[in-house]
Amino acid sequence: MSQKYAFPVEQIRRYLEPGPVVLLSALHRGKRNIMTLGWHTIMEFSPSLVGCMISAGNHSFSMIRESGECVINLPTVELADRVAKIGNCSGKERDKFADFSLTEAASQKVDAPAIDECYAHFECRLYDDVLIEKYNFFIFEVVHARVQREPQWPETLHYSGAGLFRTDGVVIDRHKLFTKVS
Amino acid sequence: MSQKYAFPVEQIRRYLEPGPVVLLSALHRGKRNIMTLGWHTIMEFSPSLVGCMISAGNHSFSMIRESGECVINLPTVELADRVAKIGNCSGKERDKFADFSLTEAASQKVDAPAIDECYAHFECRLYDDVLIEKYNFFIFEVVHARVQREPQWPETLHYSGAGLFRTDGVVIDRHKLFTKVS
Repeated sequence: MSQKYAFPVEQIRRYLEPGPVVLLSALHRGKRNIMTLGWHTIMEFSPSLVGCMISAGNHSFSMIRESGECVINLPTVELADRVAKIGNCSGKERDKFADFSLTEAASQKVDAPAIDECYAHFECRLYDDVLIEKYNFFIFEVVHARVQREPQWPETLHYSGAGLFRTDGVVIDRHKLFTKVS
Repeated sequence: MSQKYAFPVEQIRRYLEPGPVVLLSALHRGKRNIMTLGWHTIMEFSPSLVGCMISAGNHSFSMIRESGECVINLPTVELADRVAKIGNCSGKERDKFADFSLTEAASQKVDAPAIDECYAHFECRLYDDVLIEKYNFFIFEVVHARVQREPQWPETLHYSGAGLFRTDGVVIDRHKLFTKVS
């Protein structure tokens, strides 16, 4: 599949801060699963923290909570159908990797597999569970990242509800207005 | 300025879930301020909860923490220069409304003013401060929302770091793949 390279974990905001829909892959007691997620935010550069709202109704919720791990995968527009379908069925009844023709890729630092068809993989370990009980909010540390070399600006999906996504548009460069670039 | 209408607070994910850069406006002890924010996530439909990572280095941090309020304003591409400039200076030294020719609009349920030039305004009250001390993470309840009627799909800004933003692209409709539309 597509060639990927290790990417600095403290710079992953480049891919997640724009707000794309992501696919979380998990492994627990020998079972794998995938879920679609739109509710996430970068929380810190270093350690590289990402907050994710994983509704307790998801089959992946307890898998991720109990294994303390997952991989955040970044799908591009080619995967739009599969992203929608993955978000509309439960891993309780099926193997989503097999059913949606997705390929497991071995991770570097976690046991959960990555989804090879995605543009990037962010391997996560549960960092703080303080908000899981009350808000289903997981704070993960990204412990390893891999990203495709091309294209430089992947066309991702941004979910708006009601079955509607928007893709990414043009790049607007305003770096000359930045006093310290971050 | 542009006409806006009240929008159901439990549906604001339509505008925030796609991950746009937003402008937070605040008022505390008679002083107003604006900051640029890219680190936020929807956390719940009802109550309408939004989590925001507001770095403690921001002048707005203590204003929002102490007043327990702010407005999340949604800027569109026309405001790209001002969004970048607002994020690169401190309200300690200046009045950003005046300096960047932005217009205060009265809010309905909070004292903090909205920014009239923005497409939408989400009035927020601090809902839970449990993660402020450790992560600078504010959990807000959106108590009132106003949105422009046109265009139906505003062109917003998504920050990627290094002074680079991406705009929104086309709408991809996959509602037929959704078993329950949410």
